[in-house]
Amino acid sequence: MAAADAEATDDESAEEPESGTESAEGMTVIVRAEVLQQVVDQLLTVVDEAIFRIGYDGLAVAAVDPANVGMVDLDVESGAFESVGDGMFPIGLNLQRLDDYIDGASGADPVTLSYRPEMRSICIEHTNVEVEMAGIDPDAIRGEPDIPDLDPSVEFTTDAGVFRDAVESAELVSDYVELEAVVDDQELVVSGIGDTDKIETVLGPDELPEASFESDAVSMYSVAYLVGGSTGGSKYKGLLKPLDKGTDLRVEFSQEHPVKMHYDFADGFGHVTVMLAPRIQNR
Amino acid sequence: MAAADAEATDDESAEEPESGTESAEGMTVIVRAEVLQQVVDQLLTVVDEAIFRIGYDGLAVAAVDPANVGMVDLDVESGAFESVGDGMFPIGLNLQRLDDYIDGASGADPVTLSYRPEMRSICIEHTNVEVEMAGIDPDAIRGEPDIPDLDPSVEFTTDAGVFRDAVESAELVSDYVELEAVVDDQELVVSGIGDTDKIETVLGPDELPEASFESDAVSMYSVAYLVGGSTGGSKYKGLLKPLDKGTDLRVEFSQEHPVKMHYDFADGFGHVTVMLAPRIQNR
Amino acid sequence: MAAADAEATDDESAEEPESGTESAEGMTVIVRAEVLQQVVDQLLTVVDEAIFRIGYDGLAVAAVDPANVGMVDLDVESGAFESVGDGMFPIGLNLQRLDDYIDGASGADPVTLSYRPEMRSICIEHTNVEVEMAGIDPDAIRGEPDIPDLDPSVEFTTDAGVFRDAVESAELVSDYVELEAVVDDQELVVSGIGDTDKIETVLGPDELPEASFESDAVSMYSVAYLVGGSTGGSKYKGLLKPLDKGTDLRVEFSQEHPVKMHYDFADGFGHVTVMLAPRIQNR
Repeated sequence: MAAADAEATDDESAEEPESGTESAEGMTVIVRAEVLQQVVDQLLTVVDEAIFRIGYDGLAVAAVDPANVGMVDLDVESGAFESVGDGMFPIGLNLQRLDDYIDGASGADPVTLSYRPEMRSICIEHTNVEVEMAGIDPDAIRGEPDIPDLDPSVEFTTDAGVFRDAVESAELVSDYVELEAVVDDQELVVSGIGDTDKIETVLGPDELPEASFESDAVSMYSVAYLVGGSTGGSKYKGLLKPLDKGTDLRVEFSQEHPVKMHYDFADGFGHVTVMLAPRIQNR
Repeated sequence: MAAADAEATDDESAEEPESGTESAEGMTVIVRAEVLQQVVDQLLTVVDEAIFRIGYDGLAVAAVDPANVGMVDLDVESGAFESVGDGMFPIGLNLQRLDDYIDGASGADPVTLSYRPEMRSICIEHTNVEVEMAGIDPDAIRGEPDIPDLDPSVEFTTDAGVFRDAVESAELVSDYVELEAVVDDQELVVSGIGDTDKIETVLGPDELPEASFESDAVSMYSVAYLVGGSTGGSKYKGLLKPLDKGTDLRVEFSQEHPVKMHYDFADGFGHVTVMLAPRIQNR
Repeated sequence: MAAADAEATDDESAEEPESGTESAEGMTVIVRAEVLQQVVDQLLTVVDEAIFRIGYDGLAVAAVDPANVGMVDLDVESGAFESVGDGMFPIGLNLQRLDDYIDGASGADPVTLSYRPEMRSICIEHTNVEVEMAGIDPDAIRGEPDIPDLDPSVEFTTDAGVFRDAVESAELVSDYVELEAVVDDQELVVSGIGDTDKIETVLGPDELPEASFESDAVSMYSVAYLVGGSTGGSKYKGLLKPLDKGTDLRVEFSQEHPVKMHYDFADGFGHVTVMLAPRIQNR
């Protein structure tokens, strides 16, 4: 039975006790497949499981990787949803399984998510597929982080693809990438410094349409967390990997402080902040 | 020398004793590469070696996997051949090697197969390549199965791609797929039932242009045999894998009985039946 | 700082001692990315490190694989360079790292190479990337081979893609490919002879626009060296792998002697000779 019908036919559950798949009234949202996919892809860069808060306000999720080095904070306003009902529910979900279950939908295909509180499960419907997916007790999932406020001395906007290419160049020679903001040149120098070789990419005014450099600043960050391969059992691919080329990325950092990166998706209704702790340099 | 010339020049063999590659008169057929490729791909889903019967009637092969769970029965009428000669020969062939040897030909490229009985070998010619391939004694190959006649309670036709997608969805949560025919709704429900999650795809009248459901029926089948990975040393990919999207697939089954699937290829001159034993449910 | 500026500003090095990246005057060349990429790809088929001789004459490199079986001799005339300066420098370079460092440039993108003799390093600049790459002491690199002059009895020109396909067909059944030139038929027969199967590709006048067969000749060569997989720690892919289809390949060999193959690139300014020792047949 389509969960979208469930609101009107709640009393059917008495007649179909074996299904037990009725959702609580108002606990159903409908979102485009591509929006949900971006949410899942970005979260999978730090964790395997996350607590989704879904309802009349849209969707909000925050997660930090087990080493407390990388964080993702993400919300999608209700304007990105086809329908949001009038309830709100939190549910823990395994992201890799969710990724599998929405794989058959793409682009603007509507995906219906319905909460079944008595089952602690979620019903996912798209195309001609219906999935009954068990939730995870939110108490059993690592706590949601608060992304701290910072007062960055360097802020700029760049193309996510250009920034990722620069970090991947650094990866050729080192496990760390150095970001250096040079006030006088209004340039960001993205460097990898290896034992014998050094590679740097210079982003100047052409690559930084907006830039506010208060003071020179140098910080180093893990390339694995930014663009790297799988670690710790998750489908970990680096915080920057789910971003399409051409996405405007706002980057903020200060000398030896965390870097924060922001971007929007879902026609501006979706907002992502990722944060990465610095490597403290001792040389 | 081109084998196609061999019929007329059989007495050359005395002059070229080192070649010993003359084929018996009439033991040469010519077929389009894409037709032979489909034969090989479908057979490779169950076995490594098979007995080909080739000649004036076209080609016929039948094979059952070592566990006796999946069978393929396949014939190509002479109408699909460019030329069939007037003989008929059986020869055991290693399918993976045959797959390699025809790899350089594609589409409508003609492939010539000539039997050399004195060598128990087959000569394969296409493009500018000539292969002398040793046959395998048919007695050394597992016997050819008879596909039994069944009296199915459920029959329907669907797009092979749609059906395969439904089975692959079930694979996400289980090693078995459940097919349930619901007479009242004229629907086929294709489900995977996992420990915590359940996924189902509903094929209704839109997806089943022809359907004859005599009675409700439920059966479970191995997803590995239908769409799965390699097992048992062969290039095993699942019975449904070699089918192109858009191919009309006729499916027949009854409650806890084997499922049979039929499709045509080679402009209707090629006919395939695959059969898969059910999993007996004991829960 | 752009290395191209370095010639005019050599005395800056006193002011910037920490950078130490000034190149000697005239020690800078500029070449299209695709030309340098072809050089690197071809050398990587035999070695990991090679001695580049770069300067007013263009570029020259020669290398032999550790087993002394395959050799590459390669030069690019100065006409293929945007700029060559008036110096000349030899430098040992790790090819896999160089391959990584030029990966961000493609097609006609200019790549600037500047020698820094005091650092024994090379500065590579392209797009917005600058790499400081340590050189390797040429004395620590295996000596450069001399490709011997041979007096081949068989010479022909063919499409590199056609010749590679023929060798790859032979690879299906054997570790060696046999080249047999048949004077009477003006044909080259490329064969693989396996334990049970034999595969041959016949290249006739259509595939050999130029051919000079003085006498019949048969030789066998390693398919791994010609089209094979990785060996000995290098990104070894076979001497013929870096050639585009459609490239004119000139091939020369004599009975049980080495085979030499020649092709041009970089609008005719680049010249490659590869040589492969024969397998001595003892059957």
